[in-house]
Amino acid sequence: MFISESLGSNEQGHLTIGGADAVELARTYGTPLYVMDENLIRKNARLYRDSIDRYYGGRGRVLYASKAFSCKAACRLAAEEGLGLDVVSGGELRTAMSVGFPPEKICFHGNYKTPEEIDMALDYGVGRFVLDNALEVERVGAAAAKRGIRTKCLVRITPGIDAHTHDFIMTGKIDSKFGTPIEIGEILKTEGIELVGLHCHIGSQIFELEPFRHTAEVMIGFMAEIRDTYGAELSELNLGGGFGIKYIESNDPVPYDKYIESVEGVIAEACRKHGLALPFVYMEPGRSLVGEAGTTLYTVGAIKEIEGVRTYVAIDGGMTDNPRYALYQADYTAAIANRINEPKSERVTIAGRCCESGDLIQENTPIQKCESGDILAVFATGAYNYSMASNYNRVPRPPVVFVRDGQARLVVRRETFDDVCALDVDE
Amino acid sequence: MFISESLGSNEQGHLTIGGADAVELARTYGTPLYVMDENLIRKNARLYRDSIDRYYGGRGRVLYASKAFSCKAACRLAAEEGLGLDVVSGGELRTAMSVGFPPEKICFHGNYKTPEEIDMALDYGVGRFVLDNALEVERVGAAAAKRGIRTKCLVRITPGIDAHTHDFIMTGKIDSKFGTPIEIGEILKTEGIELVGLHCHIGSQIFELEPFRHTAEVMIGFMAEIRDTYGAELSELNLGGGFGIKYIESNDPVPYDKYIESVEGVIAEACRKHGLALPFVYMEPGRSLVGEAGTTLYTVGAIKEIEGVRTYVAIDGGMTDNPRYALYQADYTAAIANRINEPKSERVTIAGRCCESGDLIQENTPIQKCESGDILAVFATGAYNYSMASNYNRVPRPPVVFVRDGQARLVVRRETFDDVCALDVDE
Repeated sequence: MFISESLGSNEQGHLTIGGADAVELARTYGTPLYVMDENLIRKNARLYRDSIDRYYGGRGRVLYASKAFSCKAACRLAAEEGLGLDVVSGGELRTAMSVGFPPEKICFHGNYKTPEEIDMALDYGVGRFVLDNALEVERVGAAAAKRGIRTKCLVRITPGIDAHTHDFIMTGKIDSKFGTPIEIGEILKTEGIELVGLHCHIGSQIFELEPFRHTAEVMIGFMAEIRDTYGAELSELNLGGGFGIKYIESNDPVPYDKYIESVEGVIAEACRKHGLALPFVYMEPGRSLVGEAGTTLYTVGAIKEIEGVRTYVAIDGGMTDNPRYALYQADYTAAIANRINEPKSERVTIAGRCCESGDLIQENTPIQKCESGDILAVFATGAYNYSMASNYNRVPRPPVVFVRDGQARLVVRRETFDDVCALDVDE
Repeated sequence: MFISESLGSNEQGHLTIGGADAVELARTYGTPLYVMDENLIRKNARLYRDSIDRYYGGRGRVLYASKAFSCKAACRLAAEEGLGLDVVSGGELRTAMSVGFPPEKICFHGNYKTPEEIDMALDYGVGRFVLDNALEVERVGAAAAKRGIRTKCLVRITPGIDAHTHDFIMTGKIDSKFGTPIEIGEILKTEGIELVGLHCHIGSQIFELEPFRHTAEVMIGFMAEIRDTYGAELSELNLGGGFGIKYIESNDPVPYDKYIESVEGVIAEACRKHGLALPFVYMEPGRSLVGEAGTTLYTVGAIKEIEGVRTYVAIDGGMTDNPRYALYQADYTAAIANRINEPKSERVTIAGRCCESGDLIQENTPIQKCESGDILAVFATGAYNYSMASNYNRVPRPPVVFVRDGQARLVVRRETFDDVCALDVDE
C-alpha cells in the first residue's frame, strides 16, 4: 500500500512517517514541510556499507552524493554512518566542512571548479579531485604544485553507455557536457597531480543491472589500456551512482546489495582477464540513500472542479519546493495524510501556488476525496527537492524535519520573509 | 546587431550595457553577474504610463508584475516611476512594503493566499485583492468583515482565449489552475468584500494583438452580463500582462503603446455597444518592463569539442541562475563580451556548472570564437532569472547590478557560502 517502508497509518487514520503522525507534524511545524525518516537513510547507508564490506572485502567506499540533499544534518548523518562524501561545489564542500566532515573522505566533482573552489578544496585537504577536463588538470595541477604537493585525482570518463533512462538526466552518453577526451599521458605528466583512478557516471534513476555491469567491464578495460599504453597501474575505480528508487508503484529498483554483488563479479572477472589487481571501488548513491525517506506535507487550499476537464487541488507549495514535475514531468505518488486509509477514489491535478500554469506537482493522479484544509502528502521527495528549491514568487523555502523512532527534530528552519529580502541592498 | 537598445560596443571591442563596459563590470563584481539597464526599465515604464494617460485619459494604471523580478530596488524603481504593483505572495508584498511602496497601489494576486498572507495584506491596506476562487472569497471576506471593513476586490475570470503560445506558460485557457466558475452573485453578497471589477490574464510572451483585443471584448461582455443579471455595474477591468519581448532576432513584439491604443479602441466600442461606462483599466507588464534590460555575465571555463557531435562551452552559472532553458527550452541570444565585434563563427552548447546533464542555457547557438576566461553574455535575462534562481548544488546566487548612464551600483549582493548554510540548524 505504501511506496516506502517509512510510511504507515495510525488509529486516527493518519499517515505516519518514521512512526510520527504526519498531521501532528504539519500542525507543529506548519506546511509546506519536508519530513525525512532518519532511520531509513541510516538503514540504506548501512546496506551499502555492509555490502562493500562483504563483496569487496572492505576495499571500497560509499560516497554520499550530497547534491541530492545537502545540508549540515545530512553531512553529519553521512559522517556518523562512516560514509564518504561526493561534493560538486564550494557550497557543498563548505556545508560538509562546517560540521567537521573528514576531508580525506570527500571527493570533489563537477564540470566547473572555479580557481577559488580549487584553492578551498586544497586548503581543506579533500581526499580526491575528480578532474572533468583539461582546464581542470592544468588548474588543479598548478594550484597543488604551488603548495608543493601532489594531490590525488581521478579523471572522469564517458564510457558511452546508454542507460535507457530519461534523456534529460542521462549523463553517460558520449554527447555529454561531462568528461572529455583527455590525454591520460598529459595528466600523468602534470606536476601537482597524482592520477590514482577513473570515474564515470552513467545516468540517473536506472532500474536495470546490465548498464552497471557493462560499465564496470568497460572501465576495467580502460584501466588495462592505460597500463599497457603508459605503464601506469591505476588503483581506484569510481562507478558513480544512478540507482533508481520507487516514486510510484510500478517502479522496481534492484536491491542495492544485489547491484554491488553483481558488479563485483564483473570487476573481479575483468581484472583476472586483464591481469590487473582489484581496484579500490567507490560508489556514489544520492537519490537511493535519501529519496524514499522524504515526504512533503502541504495544506490543501482551493479545489477547482472544471466540469468535463479536470479537478485542480491547490497546495501551499509547488515548484518552489519541488520543481521536478515542471522540469522532467517526474512521477510522484500523493495521498491525503489525514484520511490515509480511505480509498483513492479521485483523480486530481495537484497545482502549486506560483503564478505559473506549469507549476504542478502531478496531473490526474489518484488520491482520496479531499477538501480545503486537508494535509496532502507527496512521497519520495527526499532527493532533489530541498536541494532544488527556489524563492520563485518570493516564496520562502520550507523547513526540514528529521524523524527517528517517532520523534521529530528540526534540521533546517523555515525561511522567513526577511530572509528572502536579506540579499537586497538597502539605500 | 543587438537585440536590446541597452547594448552596444566600445573601442576595446567590449560589450557595453547601458553605457558600462561589461568586461569591467565582470571584473569589479565577479561572475556570474546579473546586469540591468535601469534607464531601459524606466523608459519602458514611461511608455506604458504615458500611453495610459494618452489613450485612457489617465483612467488606468500600470501595475508592475513583480514576480518577473522582485527585489527592493525593483520596487523602489516602480514607485519612483509612478507604477502600481502586482504581488502574488507575502514575500513579494513584504519586499514592496519594506521600501515603503504605497499599499493602495498594490494588487494582491495568486491562486493560494494563505490566511496569514490575507491578514498581512489587510493590515498593510493593499489596494485590491484579486480573488481566484470561492475559498478566497470566503476567507478574504471573513478577515475583512472581522476588521469591520469592506475591501475592494476584483475576481479572476478565465476568458478561454487561446493565445497561441507555449503550452507551459499559457494561462488563459479554460483548463487552468487559475480562475474558477465562481457565482458572481455570491461574491456580491459576501460581507467584507466590495467587488469592483474583473481580472484576466491570457498567457505569456504573446506577440499578436488579436488575443488581447478579443479578450478585452469578451471581458466587457462579462461586465454587461453581470450588470444585466445582478444590477451591479463594475467599474474596473484588469487585463493582466503577457506582452512578448525580444529574446532572439526573430521575435517581433508589438510596440506596447500600439497594444494600448488598439485595446482601448475595442473597450470603447464594446462599452458603447453594451451601454457601459468606460472602466478604469489596469495592465500588468512584468517581463516587458524588465526582461530586455537584463544581461547575465559568466566566465567561460572548459571548452569541450566532441568531434562530430558538438562543442560544449562551460560557464560558471547555469540553471541555478537561469532555469528557463531547462524548464521551457526557452530561446536566448549569447555573445562573447570581450570580443563583441567579431563575427559569430561558431555554434556551441552553453553548459551550466550543475551536476545535471539538462543544465544548459542554449544548444547549438551562434557565438564568437571563444576560449577559457572569456566573458560570456546572455541577453534578455531581466525577467524570470533572478526571481527563479535556486541554490541547487549549493551554488550561491549571483548579485544584481543596476547600470544607469554608464554608472553601476549593487542592488542585490552576492550570496555567500555562509548564506547558503544559514537556514541549517546547528547541533
